[in-house]
Amino acid sequence: MSKGTVVLAYSGGLDTSCILVWLKEQGYDVITFLANIGQDEDFKAAQKKAESLGAKKVFIEDLRSEFVEDFIWPTVQANAVYEDRYLLGTAVARPCIGRRQVEIARREGAQFVSHGATGKGNDQIRFELTCYALYPEVKVSFMDANLMHISSCFNSHAPADLYQMTKNPEDSPNAPDVLEIEFRNGVPVKVTNEKEGKSKDSPLEIFSYLNEIGGNHGVGRIDIVENRFIGMKSRGIYETPGGTILLKAHLDIETFTMDKEVRRIKQGLGIKFSELVYNGFWYSPECDFVRHCIAKSQDNVEGKVQLSVFKGQVYILGRESPKSLYNEELVSMDVQGDYDPCDASGFIRINAVSARVWHRRKATW
Amino acid sequence: MSKGTVVLAYSGGLDTSCILVWLKEQGYDVITFLANIGQDEDFKAAQKKAESLGAKKVFIEDLRSEFVEDFIWPTVQANAVYEDRYLLGTAVARPCIGRRQVEIARREGAQFVSHGATGKGNDQIRFELTCYALYPEVKVSFMDANLMHISSCFNSHAPADLYQMTKNPEDSPNAPDVLEIEFRNGVPVKVTNEKEGKSKDSPLEIFSYLNEIGGNHGVGRIDIVENRFIGMKSRGIYETPGGTILLKAHLDIETFTMDKEVRRIKQGLGIKFSELVYNGFWYSPECDFVRHCIAKSQDNVEGKVQLSVFKGQVYILGRESPKSLYNEELVSMDVQGDYDPCDASGFIRINAVSARVWHRRKATW
Amino acid sequence: MSKGTVVLAYSGGLDTSCILVWLKEQGYDVITFLANIGQDEDFKAAQKKAESLGAKKVFIEDLRSEFVEDFIWPTVQANAVYEDRYLLGTAVARPCIGRRQVEIARREGAQFVSHGATGKGNDQIRFELTCYALYPEVKVSFMDANLMHISSCFNSHAPADLYQMTKNPEDSPNAPDVLEIEFRNGVPVKVTNEKEGKSKDSPLEIFSYLNEIGGNHGVGRIDIVENRFIGMKSRGIYETPGGTILLKAHLDIETFTMDKEVRRIKQGLGIKFSELVYNGFWYSPECDFVRHCIAKSQDNVEGKVQLSVFKGQVYILGRESPKSLYNEELVSMDVQGDYDPCDASGFIRINAVSARVWHRRKATW
Amino acid sequence: MSKGTVVLAYSGGLDTSCILVWLKEQGYDVITFLANIGQDEDFKAAQKKAESLGAKKVFIEDLRSEFVEDFIWPTVQANAVYEDRYLLGTAVARPCIGRRQVEIARREGAQFVSHGATGKGNDQIRFELTCYALYPEVKVSFMDANLMHISSCFNSHAPADLYQMTKNPEDSPNAPDVLEIEFRNGVPVKVTNEKEGKSKDSPLEIFSYLNEIGGNHGVGRIDIVENRFIGMKSRGIYETPGGTILLKAHLDIETFTMDKEVRRIKQGLGIKFSELVYNGFWYSPECDFVRHCIAKSQDNVEGKVQLSVFKGQVYILGRESPKSLYNEELVSMDVQGDYDPCDASGFIRINAVSARVWHRRKATW
Repeated sequence: MSKGTVVLAYSGGLDTSCILVWLKEQGYDVITFLANIGQDEDFKAAQKKAESLGAKKVFIEDLRSEFVEDFIWPTVQANAVYEDRYLLGTAVARPCIGRRQVEIARREGAQFVSHGATGKGNDQIRFELTCYALYPEVKVSFMDANLMHISSCFNSHAPADLYQMTKNPEDSPNAPDVLEIEFRNGVPVKVTNEKEGKSKDSPLEIFSYLNEIGGNHGVGRIDIVENRFIGMKSRGIYETPGGTILLKAHLDIETFTMDKEVRRIKQGLGIKFSELVYNGFWYSPECDFVRHCIAKSQDNVEGKVQLSVFKGQVYILGRESPKSLYNEELVSMDVQGDYDPCDASGFIRINAVSARVWHRRKATW
Repeated sequence: MSKGTVVLAYSGGLDTSCILVWLKEQGYDVITFLANIGQDEDFKAAQKKAESLGAKKVFIEDLRSEFVEDFIWPTVQANAVYEDRYLLGTAVARPCIGRRQVEIARREGAQFVSHGATGKGNDQIRFELTCYALYPEVKVSFMDANLMHISSCFNSHAPADLYQMTKNPEDSPNAPDVLEIEFRNGVPVKVTNEKEGKSKDSPLEIFSYLNEIGGNHGVGRIDIVENRFIGMKSRGIYETPGGTILLKAHLDIETFTMDKEVRRIKQGLGIKFSELVYNGFWYSPECDFVRHCIAKSQDNVEGKVQLSVFKGQVYILGRESPKSLYNEELVSMDVQGDYDPCDASGFIRINAVSARVWHRRKATW
Repeated sequence: MSKGTVVLAYSGGLDTSCILVWLKEQGYDVITFLANIGQDEDFKAAQKKAESLGAKKVFIEDLRSEFVEDFIWPTVQANAVYEDRYLLGTAVARPCIGRRQVEIARREGAQFVSHGATGKGNDQIRFELTCYALYPEVKVSFMDANLMHISSCFNSHAPADLYQMTKNPEDSPNAPDVLEIEFRNGVPVKVTNEKEGKSKDSPLEIFSYLNEIGGNHGVGRIDIVENRFIGMKSRGIYETPGGTILLKAHLDIETFTMDKEVRRIKQGLGIKFSELVYNGFWYSPECDFVRHCIAKSQDNVEGKVQLSVFKGQVYILGRESPKSLYNEELVSMDVQGDYDPCDASGFIRINAVSARVWHRRKATW
Repeated sequence: MSKGTVVLAYSGGLDTSCILVWLKEQGYDVITFLANIGQDEDFKAAQKKAESLGAKKVFIEDLRSEFVEDFIWPTVQANAVYEDRYLLGTAVARPCIGRRQVEIARREGAQFVSHGATGKGNDQIRFELTCYALYPEVKVSFMDANLMHISSCFNSHAPADLYQMTKNPEDSPNAPDVLEIEFRNGVPVKVTNEKEGKSKDSPLEIFSYLNEIGGNHGVGRIDIVENRFIGMKSRGIYETPGGTILLKAHLDIETFTMDKEVRRIKQGLGIKFSELVYNGFWYSPECDFVRHCIAKSQDNVEGKVQLSVFKGQVYILGRESPKSLYNEELVSMDVQGDYDPCDASGFIRINAVSARVWHRRKATW
């Protein structure tokens, strides 16, 4: 008699195949789930392998569009960067994959979900927090000790080439690509490469195209030491070509169209969002709240950014927007508009009041 | 009879020459002051011109070392970036120049200080706030209206070449330079270019060398729209080659040696510092306080960062430190040390408590 | 011929009467505007006086309901307290009064608005920022210098009794009043005094009743030194009896129904909101944004709070809510629910990771 | 043969006596430790009981002075209030007690420390985090499961009277006490009750006296629902009479002597400090850093505050300080000093720039 049903996040690799076999031996029915979020994978081979190892059902699902729209786009709106450098590529994949896995578990009446992300990594946390939040009754923890044991029989080989999406900038093209990205509500709605006569306008196509262009020019490689949620430092090597282009373009159009002080408050919320997502709290009430606030801030973040991509760098060339708060007349010296230069003197003197009091007092102490 | 003495920040250019003449005509004694903070300037010619236009005294002072040590180094410690992009190059020059100008004014018994930074710019604010703070009795405002009038007779010609310190990355060398920067207390104490057999260890030399290398590789160019203190947006085109290299290197060694939560708090203070410096409040009590706190956070920020500079980019290659909090044993899978994988499960479940409660409740509303 | 029309915020007192006369003498048509926001004032007498002094039109408008609903309620939602102590009573009145004044000015085709809040006070700033925001073309500044002169001919007499709304707690009743306040979306929708058999359920009645009860028990008096926007410290003596009761009750029901981490983020936004409102930025884009975010956080802030009011104090007695996130079963020792005590040990050990690393390393330096 | 030595935080009560016996039965040598931090306890009786139950050594130590100086004073400097209401009384006791317990464990060569603070409480976390930080090799976790079992045989009786330190305000004296508290570096150095002719000037005496006066007037009772670190809400009933008086007095003298913007930054650090202390992170690197910054902010927080205590309330009557930044001349209308009223108009207009642009643009969308 079955001990119950487990939905296993299955990659087709050795580790999760091993888990599959072990779970069956323990008396569980195993449903495997493999999400396509754009990774380079032989999905057919994985399907066959899962079936041959005795999976009761095999789900392989294309989540690419919802990954871009529901997870990457909010990250772009937030200018999300963890610890000033990491663009959260893998961190946003987990809640996307976990959400579907939990849906399958509920639908199939599975009481257990399982995954191969063991050890000290952030991925375990992100996966499990997602499952507990969206399926509070689920059990995910029962396997850890054993999994540790199992996985210890495999040696993890370092990949032959660490970077898979991006060319080495030294080998990248000697001429830039020039793109125009159009934003509405803080998310890209169109990307155009005039010279190549190409243009994309669905979320998945836009993001894939930016990954392609960015990757070709070696954009978005970083080698950092980061602080994991569990308080350890660890080295991370990441490449996010499309994300890097979007971050720079979004920062540009956002500052162009958003009020200064709204920007300051929103910047703080973006840092908070990055920490929450990094730590695995996508489905927490606080992340929900922060996402709502950030989305609200994007109401008028709209317009076009021109940029060039070259040798690992993204250069902003210009921007235009119907919602711009940039007021050329106001900035120009000759046309005064609301601005009276005498006001600046008063403004400065009032701003100096407390420093003057302070320095005067200090001199007497 | 003289109406009093004015210390004028004099550049040798048309605008400030015009002010000099006008001040003399109004009956003031004029002392000119020209600071050398590393800009490309013919100081001798400026001296002669000031004298020929009737300056009572002419001060030309080399502030380069104190500029690097007292102003740029704290900015490096802070990872100071205004609005996520601007590295504050000119913003930190003003309090340096203003400090000396005020010293001269006090010493020479001048009641007035003057400058050519009129109009809507941040420079006027930064200069005047500095003067009011350090010399509360000084008068700086009396000339604005007239200056506006005067300056209106000059047309401002756009410079032939906008970028002066940095090569166009398309024209920069096809091979990277590899540097090692050593930090102590969060400031660079040595830079080494192994291949070229060069090494620098005084603040001014270090910074100049990084400007040279970064400039040669086209590092640190940005074209942004920023929010000025006075609430307008304006376009800024900046190049900070040395600053960009230092920012990346400092971020790296800092994350390597600083506790995670200290880093989070310090990150917030760094953003605050950037805003204060951008807005001209270097000498305010709050900036003083923030600088103190940031400096304290740098106690253990010490070690060496290896990096390469190429085609406008800075790539971190590695780092080492006697004060590292990176614990290889702890991160490794095999040696457990303090870390028990079972703890992670408990950690995750406790972290999931509130999201579970929330999602359960939501389902019933 | 008239120089134009001025809408003057008129109180019926000497200062603004003097301004009225002076404006007429200068050749302006003057429309007076007096807002009833609940203050103790003889509105009829003010009307007659304005007419007798030559006002072209006299507007006296009852803004009490919109004051409570549009301005005080958002302040309650925010738990707004400036510098940890001041409940912003007068600060929220200004944008309410100014909004209507500007409406009248637009409707009557007046190019000018005027007020008697001169000098170094925050009220001038709050009033003028409101006018500029809602009527960007308006002129408000032209009178300042003269007003200073005018007002210098009046001596300001200190009021006989500083406190007008609240009894001295030493003279207040020797038995408490017990109230129940019901909240929905973070604002009070009903207040009940069981013992007195009274209950109020319109915003204006609720707030007036709380002012009455609080005032009778001497609640909400403070004597503080605060930091004005313009950088000076000044002494303020305030009484906000109803506001104090609402702050305590709202804090209670909010913590009862709001997720912990949402609360933390919202606390920061509430502090920001307080500063913005204190400084006069009610109609700024950032205050608009912050109000939106705070309102969103109040979605589930719903329930009833029981409290007693006695001798200047408000004591919370209990609370109940259909949206409570307080989980008695989870807190109880006997029923475990999701909570396994072993998890706490893992949670603690993981939380100790970085402090252990740090203390170990420190011991070696 | 002994399994090792345990230092047990022993209260003399049933729970910890039970643990003592159980530990001995399991084969451990037990050293008991009882800290006197001012609680009402029969220390002699506890000593005898521990000895009679077989404790190998019994330590009873008076930590009252170091509790006040090392733990309460920094909390006063921080204006520490958790979730806007809880003054952290018990939260600061744990790191004080734990520090000594760990010292004893190290000195006595004990590998284990133990305590009776089991279950879902914050105290377990605070105690264990302290032990792990200060004695990284220590073992504290091994007993939890068993302890749960043991403690389940005792019924916890609710105390007859919940409040032990404070009178019911309804029964408190009908006349106020008036005190003057003198601060230096943000901590009290003297308290005077003129009327009673009493004055205290050692930390322990000052704090004890304020507890006595405050308790007699029913000051500092709260009944709240708070968010525990582990994500549950729980009800807490607290009384902190002396702490409440000090909070109000310190807020007053701090705002009087501290620059406005320093205060804002420090307020944020104080909130951070409160969260860290509540959660048990007193000995973390980040709490160390925050304490350092807060202490720095107190350099000039010096002066005397007069206040009255009556019926549960603390009223500030006045303050004076040689380091005051309150500038009577500046605030007064007649003497202008640095302040020119025309400056205010310019200040306001510049502050209105962005709101005007925003409202104008909005009107066109």
